[in-house]
Amino acid sequence: MFEKILFPTDFSDVATKALQYVKRLKEAGGEEVTVLHVIDQSNLELLSSYSTIQDFISIEKEIEKRSLEEIALVVNELKQLGFKVKERIEKGVPLRVVLKVADEENPSVIVVGSHGKSNLEELLLGSVSEKVVRKSKHPVLVVKR
Amino acid sequence: MFEKILFPTDFSDVATKALQYVKRLKEAGGEEVTVLHVIDQSNLELLSSYSTIQDFISIEKEIEKRSLEEIALVVNELKQLGFKVKERIEKGVPLRVVLKVADEENPSVIVVGSHGKSNLEELLLGSVSEKVVRKSKHPVLVVKR
Repeated sequence: MFEKILFPTDFSDVATKALQYVKRLKEAGGEEVTVLHVIDQSNLELLSSYSTIQDFISIEKEIEKRSLEEIALVVNELKQLGFKVKERIEKGVPLRVVLKVADEENPSVIVVGSHGKSNLEELLLGSVSEKVVRKSKHPVLVVKR
Repeated sequence: MFEKILFPTDFSDVATKALQYVKRLKEAGGEEVTVLHVIDQSNLELLSSYSTIQDFISIEKEIEKRSLEEIALVVNELKQLGFKVKERIEKGVPLRVVLKVADEENPSVIVVGSHGKSNLEELLLGSVSEKVVRKSKHPVLVVKR
C-alpha cells in the first residue's frame, strides 16, 4: 500500500516537510522511493529570453549542477533509512512530468508538498499538487506548509 | 505525523478503499481515528421538495439509522486493530463539515476517497476531496478509485 513511493520535490520548505512523511512511511511498508526533480521548462524559457546564449548555457548548467547536489542530499537521507532509492532529474512542465513518471513507475503513493516555489502563479492557477490529485490515478498524500 | 487520523466517509467503494490506507497507517504511528460521516444537506433538501412531510421525516430517520449502522461497522473494524476511535455523524454541506471537524480535531492527516457518491456533480464542480486538499491546513491523503 505504501511500498513504492514517488516523491517529486522542488527542494522548497514544504517539499522538505513532505520528505519527513516519506521517511515515516518506512514503518508502514515503504521500501522504494523515486525522488523526482523537474527543472521547470517555463523558467528556462523565461531565462533564455532575458540573457545571451552564452549566459543562458552557463546558467542552465549551474541549475543542473545545483539540482544534482540537492537531489543527492535527499537520496542519501533516504538511503540511510534503508530505502531503495531511484533519482530522476527531468526538464519539462512539472505537472506533465510528474504524471508521466507516475505512469512509468506505477507508485503505491505519491507524496508531494502542497505548493511549489512559484507561489504567485500557483495562487492564480491552482497548485501543481492539486492538479496531481485531480489527474493521477495513484493515491496522493499532500503535505501542507 | 500519522498519530491522529480524520477519516471522512460516505461509505462508497472508494471510501472503503481509503479505509484500508487508514488501517495501514497504524504501523506508521497511527493511534486515533475520527470517523466522520456527513449526511448531505442538499440531498435532504432535494428529498423534502419531492415528498410529503411525513414521508420526509420517515426517510430522514431511515437515512440516520443506516448511517449509524454503517459507521458502526467501520468503527469496529478500526477498534479491532487497536485504534482509539471517535465517531461523528453530522448534517450539512460535506466540504464545510469536513473542514469544520478538521479544525476542531486538528488531525495529523486526513485520509479521504477521491470521489463521493454524487459522481456527476463532482465531475462538473470538482470533487469534495480536491477542495479539502485546497482548503485544509492539514496533510491530506487522497485515495483514488
